[in-house]
Amino acid sequence: MTLPTYQEALEQEILSTQYGEQPTELYEPIRYLMALGGKRIRPALTLIGASLWTDQWQSFLKPALAVEVFHNFTLMHDDIMDEAPLRRGQPTVHQKWNTNTAILSGDVMLVAAYDLLTDVPDAVFKSVIKRFNRTAAEVCEGQQWDMNFASLDTVSIEQYTEMIRLKTSVLIGFALELGGMLVQAPTKDVQALYDLGISMGLGFQLKDDVLDVYGDPEKFGKQVGGDILENKKTWLMIQALHRGKNTPAGAELLHWLTVQDQPEVKVQEVTRIFTDLGIKDLAEAQVDAYFDQARQGIDQLDVPASRKKPLFDLANMLHQREK
Amino acid sequence: MTLPTYQEALEQEILSTQYGEQPTELYEPIRYLMALGGKRIRPALTLIGASLWTDQWQSFLKPALAVEVFHNFTLMHDDIMDEAPLRRGQPTVHQKWNTNTAILSGDVMLVAAYDLLTDVPDAVFKSVIKRFNRTAAEVCEGQQWDMNFASLDTVSIEQYTEMIRLKTSVLIGFALELGGMLVQAPTKDVQALYDLGISMGLGFQLKDDVLDVYGDPEKFGKQVGGDILENKKTWLMIQALHRGKNTPAGAELLHWLTVQDQPEVKVQEVTRIFTDLGIKDLAEAQVDAYFDQARQGIDQLDVPASRKKPLFDLANMLHQREK
Repeated sequence: MTLPTYQEALEQEILSTQYGEQPTELYEPIRYLMALGGKRIRPALTLIGASLWTDQWQSFLKPALAVEVFHNFTLMHDDIMDEAPLRRGQPTVHQKWNTNTAILSGDVMLVAAYDLLTDVPDAVFKSVIKRFNRTAAEVCEGQQWDMNFASLDTVSIEQYTEMIRLKTSVLIGFALELGGMLVQAPTKDVQALYDLGISMGLGFQLKDDVLDVYGDPEKFGKQVGGDILENKKTWLMIQALHRGKNTPAGAELLHWLTVQDQPEVKVQEVTRIFTDLGIKDLAEAQVDAYFDQARQGIDQLDVPASRKKPLFDLANMLHQREK
Repeated sequence: MTLPTYQEALEQEILSTQYGEQPTELYEPIRYLMALGGKRIRPALTLIGASLWTDQWQSFLKPALAVEVFHNFTLMHDDIMDEAPLRRGQPTVHQKWNTNTAILSGDVMLVAAYDLLTDVPDAVFKSVIKRFNRTAAEVCEGQQWDMNFASLDTVSIEQYTEMIRLKTSVLIGFALELGGMLVQAPTKDVQALYDLGISMGLGFQLKDDVLDVYGDPEKFGKQVGGDILENKKTWLMIQALHRGKNTPAGAELLHWLTVQDQPEVKVQEVTRIFTDLGIKDLAEAQVDAYFDQARQGIDQLDVPASRKKPLFDLANMLHQREK
């Protein structure tokens, strides 16, 4: 099975899922956000995880969708907190409706995610809910750390990595782990799925930070240099500030952090400083290391090699992606 | 067992419950809100419901607390939406911290409620989660209707009753029903608990509307007349507008709805109009009817009469309360 097969099945499932009808202010934003698209990587990981042991992955569309609904719930609430006007090029829910609607629709979305999870085998239901609870709390913790970091002077690379582990990676780990739990795979393989999902998630987020600076504007969906313009403490910025400490390049970088009125030059210069400091190479090596770790994890799973192809393909796709 | 016994056990459980530690911005507001007090009626209903069949109610403190945590989650988010500065006389979470913190802490609280629910017998876990999901979605629907009503010219008594059924009663129904589910009581009794909880919840909310107008300022916790000053479409206001239609009293009432600069006279006059139109008697008769229905439900439960006393006592307490 290839990724598009899973993605198409998921899109069908999304189209046929009813979250509720009345009041429309509550349910329409859910349908709107879910219809904005995306690559459906997380639920695909659940299906691909289950497919390591079974051909009956189609019976797990609902729990897989739970992961996607949860992910979109976090987007709906994060967009309020980050005051983001756009999501996938369209108005965010709090912009299109209002903040109250985005809060309450988001709440119902979180409940909807739990409801989709009720469609798992009874034997694993309680352990799935426990793991999901832990994951959901950690994702909120990650978002809170991310907000806290905005008002801190310095953030260490360890703090940043822990933040993206919580905010992004644990859900990717859980998505894969859930696939294993659904087919009642051996505990050690379920744990291995989670662990390799964490590596994949860290690689995924770091790749995002790299693309935000070095992406091809023709291919990258967002504005290249957006993080630089926001003075965002990304992995690259943190490393550059660290490596540049007490050097002319570091002084230049600190200067550019204070500049607000020359966006194009700022992006160009900060990018050059990153490159001069070797941050591009460093970041790409770290991305490679995370995905290598993920691939090693796949290697070690106790299933026939032929079953592993979709998971390897997805890892490679995320590793090589340009948008 | 009397209500204070259940309440004390719940307070102990609340004190010893850990929601999480770091980041503190995420977990401190949960501890703060849970410590603001309240009568803990909902979790007490779960324990009292279970006590109809068992003396081992203490083994159900965690799922009972789940209901209270969920209730407080709705308060945290509702207070943002309603721009409420105070909750139980203390600053609301979004006032004391900020809106983002109240959104995210609330999200984690909802997850915490689900996590407390994992502490139920395996045999009923999935049905508990399904019923909780339905209840949680309905409570959000009720809040959305409540917000929608603020901008409508007219709301019918049927629409209002359906709103308070969703916003308030279904959680009281679920709290009682959960008690029955936890001890695996017969399905018909579990259903009867839910139904009588709905009646009790409707009576509880309508009593609230009555106390807001006719409460003794010495005993009532909030400002008497608050709903009148807000022009809130309560059960009393809706009935008064209906009964007063095309009468001098009705015209007077419509006039007072436009007055903002004479708060004391407004409360006094609107209260008088309500009384003249017979709304006080009508509302009190309806409160009595709801609680009578609840008591009939208790009567019909298939358990020894001696076991029913705490539930009767609680129904009577809610019926007779003056604050």
